[in-house]
Amino acid sequence: MTTDSTQTLATGSRASWRRTHTCGELRSSHIGSTVTLNGWVAGRRDHGGIYFVDLRDRYGMTQVTLATELSDRTQFSTEWVVAITGEVVARESGNANAELPTGEVEVRVKELVVLSQATVPPFEVDDGIETAVEIRLRHRHVDLRRPEMTRNLIHRSRFIGAMRRAFEAQDFVEVETPILTKATPEGARDYLVPSRVHPGEFYALPQSPQIFKQILMVSGLDRYFQVARCFRDEDLRADRQPEFTQLDMEMSFVAEDDVFEAWEKVMASVFDEVMGIQLATPFARLTWREAMDRFGSDKPDLRYGLELVDLAQWVPLSGFKVFEGALAEKNGRVMAICVPGGGSAISRGQMKTLESRAKELGAQGLAWWKPGESGGGAGPVARFCEGDSGADLLARLGGGEGDLVLFCAGEQRLVWKVLGALRTDCARRLELIPKGHTAAEHYCFAWVVDFPMYEWDEETGAFMSAHHPFTAPVDPTLAGDQGELMSRAYDLVLNGWELGSGSIRIHDQKLQARIFDQLGISPQEARAKFGFLLDALGSGAPPHGGFAMGLDRVVALTLGLEGIRDVIAFPKTTSATDLMCGAPSPVPDRQLAEVHVARAGRGRTAEGGAASPAGA
Amino acid sequence: MTTDSTQTLATGSRASWRRTHTCGELRSSHIGSTVTLNGWVAGRRDHGGIYFVDLRDRYGMTQVTLATELSDRTQFSTEWVVAITGEVVARESGNANAELPTGEVEVRVKELVVLSQATVPPFEVDDGIETAVEIRLRHRHVDLRRPEMTRNLIHRSRFIGAMRRAFEAQDFVEVETPILTKATPEGARDYLVPSRVHPGEFYALPQSPQIFKQILMVSGLDRYFQVARCFRDEDLRADRQPEFTQLDMEMSFVAEDDVFEAWEKVMASVFDEVMGIQLATPFARLTWREAMDRFGSDKPDLRYGLELVDLAQWVPLSGFKVFEGALAEKNGRVMAICVPGGGSAISRGQMKTLESRAKELGAQGLAWWKPGESGGGAGPVARFCEGDSGADLLARLGGGEGDLVLFCAGEQRLVWKVLGALRTDCARRLELIPKGHTAAEHYCFAWVVDFPMYEWDEETGAFMSAHHPFTAPVDPTLAGDQGELMSRAYDLVLNGWELGSGSIRIHDQKLQARIFDQLGISPQEARAKFGFLLDALGSGAPPHGGFAMGLDRVVALTLGLEGIRDVIAFPKTTSATDLMCGAPSPVPDRQLAEVHVARAGRGRTAEGGAASPAGA
Repeated sequence: MTTDSTQTLATGSRASWRRTHTCGELRSSHIGSTVTLNGWVAGRRDHGGIYFVDLRDRYGMTQVTLATELSDRTQFSTEWVVAITGEVVARESGNANAELPTGEVEVRVKELVVLSQATVPPFEVDDGIETAVEIRLRHRHVDLRRPEMTRNLIHRSRFIGAMRRAFEAQDFVEVETPILTKATPEGARDYLVPSRVHPGEFYALPQSPQIFKQILMVSGLDRYFQVARCFRDEDLRADRQPEFTQLDMEMSFVAEDDVFEAWEKVMASVFDEVMGIQLATPFARLTWREAMDRFGSDKPDLRYGLELVDLAQWVPLSGFKVFEGALAEKNGRVMAICVPGGGSAISRGQMKTLESRAKELGAQGLAWWKPGESGGGAGPVARFCEGDSGADLLARLGGGEGDLVLFCAGEQRLVWKVLGALRTDCARRLELIPKGHTAAEHYCFAWVVDFPMYEWDEETGAFMSAHHPFTAPVDPTLAGDQGELMSRAYDLVLNGWELGSGSIRIHDQKLQARIFDQLGISPQEARAKFGFLLDALGSGAPPHGGFAMGLDRVVALTLGLEGIRDVIAFPKTTSATDLMCGAPSPVPDRQLAEVHVARAGRGRTAEGGAASPAGA
Repeated sequence: MTTDSTQTLATGSRASWRRTHTCGELRSSHIGSTVTLNGWVAGRRDHGGIYFVDLRDRYGMTQVTLATELSDRTQFSTEWVVAITGEVVARESGNANAELPTGEVEVRVKELVVLSQATVPPFEVDDGIETAVEIRLRHRHVDLRRPEMTRNLIHRSRFIGAMRRAFEAQDFVEVETPILTKATPEGARDYLVPSRVHPGEFYALPQSPQIFKQILMVSGLDRYFQVARCFRDEDLRADRQPEFTQLDMEMSFVAEDDVFEAWEKVMASVFDEVMGIQLATPFARLTWREAMDRFGSDKPDLRYGLELVDLAQWVPLSGFKVFEGALAEKNGRVMAICVPGGGSAISRGQMKTLESRAKELGAQGLAWWKPGESGGGAGPVARFCEGDSGADLLARLGGGEGDLVLFCAGEQRLVWKVLGALRTDCARRLELIPKGHTAAEHYCFAWVVDFPMYEWDEETGAFMSAHHPFTAPVDPTLAGDQGELMSRAYDLVLNGWELGSGSIRIHDQKLQARIFDQLGISPQEARAKFGFLLDALGSGAPPHGGFAMGLDRVVALTLGLEGIRDVIAFPKTTSATDLMCGAPSPVPDRQLAEVHVARAGRGRTAEGGAASPAGA
């Protein structure tokens, strides 16, 4: 027995401890073979004079046994890395482990080499631990060793690999676009990189490869894709990362249906290959207005009903002045959802919760009705629902006694928002959402199309692009009220999540210039920022459109995870810190001087003693 | 006939001009079909009352014909984007174009829609143009439209795609590592990104994912790869880019041979799949010393001979004091190459060129000998080569009358450098290098192993890692002279180019600490910079090693290109400028203030009127 924690290989040779099999490989067909395994000591126990060790690697776990005199001679412990050589034997009858693919056999060790010692790990190398995320991120080298994390990374790799192949199968060409580039127009804050060669100038990290992919279409590449790293220096919510990965693509000579079909083929192929799930295609298609009117959301969860119902026809029957007043306002709507069985399933206390939620979202209050056995019933608007009024209402809602009707009246965006949120809350409370992520029924994809072209930005008092300024309008003559213009933008939605968005682009230089004008971008500014795109559009641009899907989210959803941090090898915290390697960090003044910047403002003092303040 | 340069599609519908075929698709089997093609007008000519138009897309070129009254009605020109619908007909006998896959047919146009107009392109959209690279980069949207550039991008995509599949086939997992990270130890200058959330702190863009991939091995991922973007803020030579792409990989429980075999499988599979070339494996393997002694280079071009020959045994026979003196020095060597037929093939003028080259490289002069018919011969050292001396020399060199012998004497690194360079120069001059890139014989791969561990840095007066500080030493006891230590680093070499490098890493925490010490890195500094790696090595690290290959170079070489700029979609100039989008560029003070930096030094004044100087 040797202890070889040093490295004594002759160059170019094989290691003497080189494995013949992985720890996930041995079956009863191997019984009688002599094998060498390499792995981590996952656990060990002494039992009847035999020492049992679970040896773990990425591929699985194998039980190995050491006679006592062998285990006595070599010191090793949990998480040490060892190589063992021995004979594969059948486990004693009754001791087979059906949970473990290698559970029928064990290896009787003749030789054990310690390859690496290990300190005691900061938390258990096992699934389902309840360690604070900060501790896990700080010791990511241990955290990723846990089988569920290893599985997540492997699933991600397989998922993205399958996506690439599916795009390649459709003649898409992967092109790498620059990371050191110019400020892009997505509207979020750019990460900046000072230039050493050009004093006072800066690169920006791309928020997306949007302009580059359009340029590639102008170049005739016809079908582009890229697994692209994107960067946004935004205040992070728990589930956002400063850098993220998207499957970015663009196609020439297409309209919406062509883009949708390309993606449906890809998703069907990936789900089949990676998870053995046969997705039904084509996916559902809804206009943005339909999504809002039926689900109160532009990313509707279609796994359950509880649809919104418009009550404009019913309101006059009800005689309820408040509703009549709401309807009379500009874009005034009265809508409701009917929660089946909500009459009893939603308690009085839960009604209070729903009411506070509605108020948080901007509603004055929450009107509700629990229809009674023969008309009437309970709730603040019950008296407007008596007789014909109630019968008409229930017919419209497809509801009846025992249900709960939740009303909202007001400007339509408010009504959508409130009822959309209550719809989701009630579905959760009533457990209407199918659980699971392994079958086709767990995935309700939909394309949402025809988004508004512009959003009014209260802060700047101006219109801004709802998607981005290169999105084609539905009506290229731009007739009518600017705020009412619709665009050829679309989203792909899954179970209430927006997986990605895209659009048919403007390929006409003059139309692009008019859109810049509508956005209040002067011709000079347009030239300075996007001159090269305008030039490209003037050089013979094909009609084109594309789409980008955030990969972190879809990978997490297909693992049944709500958060994205467990599908990213080295994520950052909400303060954009890498706790493992300690980034960002101070840098010496000399290094800053080389790129012609100095710390300013708070940055200057924050440095304090660590580095002397830089002279400007 | 319609002119539709606007966009009038109903959302979700198909475009009326949607192509039925690409411009590379039609054959005589399509004769009689009615087809729609979309593409760029590559050329047009009027011939006998018929208007001939070459329509181009990524997939090829198709000839279409318009009757005069049709062409008269619609104005269009070169590089305009059009859709045509018409009948596929056979070309008139004698007019078939065998050069063109679609050359047997043409399309008789019934309907033509202009999709986009175009300005006159700044240079011809054709192969083999002689336009200045700056013009091409500035108008990259037109440059990439040229068929050879489109072909390059497609080849790159296929090559990298095939590499991924070959790694995936060997159970490698692709993991994305961060771009916003901490300063890495490769020794080149980092690109910095100021943090908004952490005033005065900075991210660095990675020079390689080195530490992350080692962490992944400690995490038990076993086999990692990534097509990784890397960044180095160095003064650029014509053929370097500030950001570049490498195929980065790492494996656990391996020695050198395992890494080499994994790569040989990948390269053989990629060359077969992408180019139909059957590479012979295993590749040649040379130690660094053998490469230097035989080829005077650590990246030898093995496509031809002209090997260096050591003359230590011969020198005493020659009686040449200068050579005897050189041999007596520390690491003194006398070596030569014999250029077959060089006696007549290398003219007196060319000898002068070789001599200047040798002097440029540090030699005192160039000793040479053209052996005569019966001993003697010409050249400054001819008189030391008479009789037995000459016969012995020619026997060692395997040369004879009509050849040219070039000598070099001095410290061995000088001798290697000079003769290595002359070897290449002579091979070029004598056209010994096989031309082409389409057959196995055009590719001479070799692994060079056992590099020196350290290089002496004259500037700092200290040893630095020849590869990087995580490279395992051949002798882990570190016995002997530090400058003489050899490492387990290796390069893959192709035709005189270094395609990439790698090493078996240190997996022992204590050994890593000793190497930091040898590099003059104090324990405090090591902890600050690489603490998380040391922690990881102490947590149970498997023996591991890896490799990274620069993809720009290998893609260029497999296209027969010397430069890498034509295989990068959007490259930067030698001053790290993106001429198309104009990056880097000035940014408003407000944006700098947000990330707590100010312009300093030259940067401040360079900005001048464009933006007011920022207060520090």
